[in-house]
Amino acid sequence: MNSRIAFFAAAAALTASFSAQAQFAKPEDAIKYRQSALSVMGTHTGRLGAMVAGRVPFDAKAAQDNAAVIATVAALPWGGFGAGTEGGKAKANIWTDAAKFKANGDKLAADAARLDVAAKSGNLDQIRAAFGAYAGNCKTCHDEFRNN
Amino acid sequence: MNSRIAFFAAAAALTASFSAQAQFAKPEDAIKYRQSALSVMGTHTGRLGAMVAGRVPFDAKAAQDNAAVIATVAALPWGGFGAGTEGGKAKANIWTDAAKFKANGDKLAADAARLDVAAKSGNLDQIRAAFGAYAGNCKTCHDEFRNN
Repeated sequence: MNSRIAFFAAAAALTASFSAQAQFAKPEDAIKYRQSALSVMGTHTGRLGAMVAGRVPFDAKAAQDNAAVIATVAALPWGGFGAGTEGGKAKANIWTDAAKFKANGDKLAADAARLDVAAKSGNLDQIRAAFGAYAGNCKTCHDEFRNN
Repeated sequence: MNSRIAFFAAAAALTASFSAQAQFAKPEDAIKYRQSALSVMGTHTGRLGAMVAGRVPFDAKAAQDNAAVIATVAALPWGGFGAGTEGGKAKANIWTDAAKFKANGDKLAADAARLDVAAKSGNLDQIRAAFGAYAGNCKTCHDEFRNN
């Protein structure tokens, strides 16, 4: 273990987010992971959003597939914001206001699970309502915690 | 629509992979998407692999969580290799030997689904066998279709 990793490992051990941080050998790995997960989430959110907004025809199977991916991936990025992983577009308040950031991530994951249930109904009105609740979390987080 | 996108859209319309290509507005978006999905898959494969290899203690819940992510994400990258999306580390034979590439991707997704079932058993020997079959596809594909 080189000294840089040892430093981050030691810093992480002092925080509540040790288990998440310990999943990555280097801070850059955590940044790449969270950016990748958010990118995949964004692609499938965009596809479902296009159906919800009527820009592409509604396809119940495609809606279900997109919502299932979203529900799985929406739980992932937050583990990539452990102590010592500042960087990318992340604002400093992700770490200084960690409780609020975590609450937003948890709510997004819960709303994504509800979106998955709604998509399985095949009812576009239900999907649209669930999508609105889910996507609101994206906007809140980007407004408050992301540099554009 | 600018001329470059129009060109790719026209090229894509001539191929069987139109529907995948049509999911992305620009080739760069497809490249970013597949790289992101593969990166997330690689992270969770590495975590499960560390348990299978005994480098970290076996944790049945963590193994299930990782396998569930892998099973969902393993189906995604291949839709990002549509016509006109050459680039990144992708070798040209992905497009010139598309049937073989698709067969590898399909087998990987099927083996990932079996790994998910094995992980739910909580039995490390079953997980190890299923992981070996799954991970073999990663190696085959990297050897044949990826520039390192």
